[in-house]
Amino acid sequence: MSTHPLEELLHPRSIAIVGASASGRGGGFLNPLLEQGFKGPIYPVNPKYDEILGLKTYARVRDIPGPVDFVISSIPAAGVLDMLADCAEKGVKLIHLFTARFSETGREDAAELEREILRRAKAAGIRLIGPNCMGVYYPAEHISFNEGMPKESGSVGLASQSGQAVGEITGNASQRGLRFSKAISYGNAIDFNECDYLEYFTQDPETKLILSYIEGVRDGPRFLQTLRAAAAVKPVIILKGGRGEAGTRATASHTASLAGSREIWNAVVNQAGVINVVDIDEMVDIATAFYFLPEMRRANVGVVGGSGGSSVMAADLCEEAGLNVIPLPDEIRQELKKQGNAIWDWIGNPADFSISMGDDSSAEAVTKLIAKHPSFDFLMTFVSGPWRRDPESFSLENHLKRYSLDDIKGKPLVMVFQDNPRFATDGDGMAEYDKIVKQMKDRFISEGYPMYPNIRRAASAVGRMIRYYQKRG
Amino acid sequence: MSTHPLEELLHPRSIAIVGASASGRGGGFLNPLLEQGFKGPIYPVNPKYDEILGLKTYARVRDIPGPVDFVISSIPAAGVLDMLADCAEKGVKLIHLFTARFSETGREDAAELEREILRRAKAAGIRLIGPNCMGVYYPAEHISFNEGMPKESGSVGLASQSGQAVGEITGNASQRGLRFSKAISYGNAIDFNECDYLEYFTQDPETKLILSYIEGVRDGPRFLQTLRAAAAVKPVIILKGGRGEAGTRATASHTASLAGSREIWNAVVNQAGVINVVDIDEMVDIATAFYFLPEMRRANVGVVGGSGGSSVMAADLCEEAGLNVIPLPDEIRQELKKQGNAIWDWIGNPADFSISMGDDSSAEAVTKLIAKHPSFDFLMTFVSGPWRRDPESFSLENHLKRYSLDDIKGKPLVMVFQDNPRFATDGDGMAEYDKIVKQMKDRFISEGYPMYPNIRRAASAVGRMIRYYQKRG
Repeated sequence: MSTHPLEELLHPRSIAIVGASASGRGGGFLNPLLEQGFKGPIYPVNPKYDEILGLKTYARVRDIPGPVDFVISSIPAAGVLDMLADCAEKGVKLIHLFTARFSETGREDAAELEREILRRAKAAGIRLIGPNCMGVYYPAEHISFNEGMPKESGSVGLASQSGQAVGEITGNASQRGLRFSKAISYGNAIDFNECDYLEYFTQDPETKLILSYIEGVRDGPRFLQTLRAAAAVKPVIILKGGRGEAGTRATASHTASLAGSREIWNAVVNQAGVINVVDIDEMVDIATAFYFLPEMRRANVGVVGGSGGSSVMAADLCEEAGLNVIPLPDEIRQELKKQGNAIWDWIGNPADFSISMGDDSSAEAVTKLIAKHPSFDFLMTFVSGPWRRDPESFSLENHLKRYSLDDIKGKPLVMVFQDNPRFATDGDGMAEYDKIVKQMKDRFISEGYPMYPNIRRAASAVGRMIRYYQKRG
Repeated sequence: MSTHPLEELLHPRSIAIVGASASGRGGGFLNPLLEQGFKGPIYPVNPKYDEILGLKTYARVRDIPGPVDFVISSIPAAGVLDMLADCAEKGVKLIHLFTARFSETGREDAAELEREILRRAKAAGIRLIGPNCMGVYYPAEHISFNEGMPKESGSVGLASQSGQAVGEITGNASQRGLRFSKAISYGNAIDFNECDYLEYFTQDPETKLILSYIEGVRDGPRFLQTLRAAAAVKPVIILKGGRGEAGTRATASHTASLAGSREIWNAVVNQAGVINVVDIDEMVDIATAFYFLPEMRRANVGVVGGSGGSSVMAADLCEEAGLNVIPLPDEIRQELKKQGNAIWDWIGNPADFSISMGDDSSAEAVTKLIAKHPSFDFLMTFVSGPWRRDPESFSLENHLKRYSLDDIKGKPLVMVFQDNPRFATDGDGMAEYDKIVKQMKDRFISEGYPMYPNIRRAASAVGRMIRYYQKRG
């Protein structure tokens, strides 16, 4: 069992939202809790209302009848000390301060107010997430900071200093089929900081993969130790915000963080065995590989389903990402010959299916043999929308027949969804096509396939994952 | 005036499509000509039909009554010699052989047939594009190999050995607002080859930017000389297919090309002053910068409109792409203070608009001052879809009000369209949102703004373009 202080704090019996309203950002915290179906009482707090979205609303936290464990504050900074006094009286255990305009403004009075909030919270035994952040998404506890988030839990733990990044990462990753144990945006980090969140996810049995967006590090030696401990037990993917001069200026005015130099950062994370990424796409791409693929240490890939130039470019990009695009084994060629396959001497790896000239069965036979052959560690396959000139393929089931995935189970499969090029003049006539493409993606993702928008990103992400496992031996 | 042999050949008075049919690939060549509105007679040739899509259809080329300048062949390889005899009799000047299964099969009989075709074409004075390729898109002549291609001409010339790549490049680039002078896919290149097409575009007054996807080079010294001559007068962006071992195997079975080593290739193109890319996204990204931006030699960028973490990451990624994210000049700060702007001491570059807390006018004032200040060479701005919780913003005009682009004319502007993250549970309710996003993109693109899907790709493309112009002095 977890003994980390956050463990107990993130199972609140009730939640109060101070500064709640029916719309705007106050509603932005109320609506997600209602949508997720938080099990305990939800108390909107706002002296201007008697009721918000059907919930009785209180003027102050101390007016709430029952116990209040967790408070989300979306009131202006000037009201926080007063609210803290109420929270202390009510025995609140944890406050998430969405409230901003503190030290990140660069103004001394705002920074002093922030310090005073921390002093008083400590005196009252109240722990703080934030200020200046989006707070908590914890699907198993039915807590979320955004509407439209999946209700199912998964094994990804995310700590993000930025609220923009926590929304973009959870949103994009959710679309790729990843699910979260919890995601926390922690802003200025005046109480719990980057090390606390990393330690929490390190010991959290619900979390198998840790993602983190970090702008500032308060305690270098502790951070390195924390990173090492985390990386020793789980894959950790870190995106550093504020790597250079301009970024460091930006982190100061964003989360009042002091960023260090790019070189020191790279040295630290490499030493710790952590996966270092430079943007959110790269983070989500690599996380997708870890989430859906087994621990792979060998990199022999069979690339199937490409067409002409895309097969050639796939070969180049896979090699450049450290994958081995091995030649087609002679046993496969001989077996194809025995089957009377017309392209037995021509097809290779990548298996360019355009040369089968529409003979799907000969292409299928190649895929099956590659999937079975022990020299191949995994497959990468090109998937595409229905063929535009063939109205019959404009049905999900008809089109899916082209992808006989049952025949290749047993070998890990990475999908590249190459949408056919959209032309400028396509207009609205493609609505039905778009619908089928979306349905296909949803289907494949729900069946647990890692899916990438192009070959470069697929190859790069899977290559990074394989090298990670190779290093760990 | 151009004196290149392709110049006259690409203005045919008439076109015959041998192997035409109402659907399938034969119709694939007929339909685009009808859609584009080719001005001269179009003659379908197929002994099985009297009429295809309303056009009188001939059994053989020699049956066609009028002169035939250009023939597109989509019959099987075995019928090509016979067709060539007809074409010689009719005085055909140019044949595009979509027909494939020649030397790329690796089979000696197929390679010998290919050589015989070239010999007989030469004897008859007929020039060949291909075989094994998609042929010609030339909007000013109303010729296209795909449906849905823009009818307007532009200044991009593309020569692509691969037919898959020519479709993907023209399709993707068209969506970004680029328009083509002509795009030619040339496959096995037995007659006109990579050097001929480069020379054609080099001297073509309609072409200002040359793109090329190349798998094989037949004559190294001539190729280097051709590249140099092209790069001396126009920007040339080249994507090499078959850079490594597996890719070289793949080019052999794709277009019967012998690829060389990655190192030699990189040395050659760098020496020639050509822009070297590794995939189609990178090619189209850089082409978009050249197409819409002026010749920029300085790299001081003002980054506006980001929110929190995205501003921090923008700073990092711009710096890493060689752009200068200079601090906000003190004159701008003083001017903001004079205006009574509440964030005068806090805002910087990148200008993180989330700190304006919804006060659009204070953010707008910052953008205007950055746009006017001589220290900034160009702007990069984050654009996003309407705010989901604000139904009023779900109208194109209301949402566009946030982007007062008229105020910042005079400074080049690069757009990053950060679509708000889509959540897994969004479902069909977002159709209206998606429609507005598409309308916004179309609007901005039609107004001539270079648009990128994320900051990394925007910064990288613009950085590559600036370094290109810097090198040329």
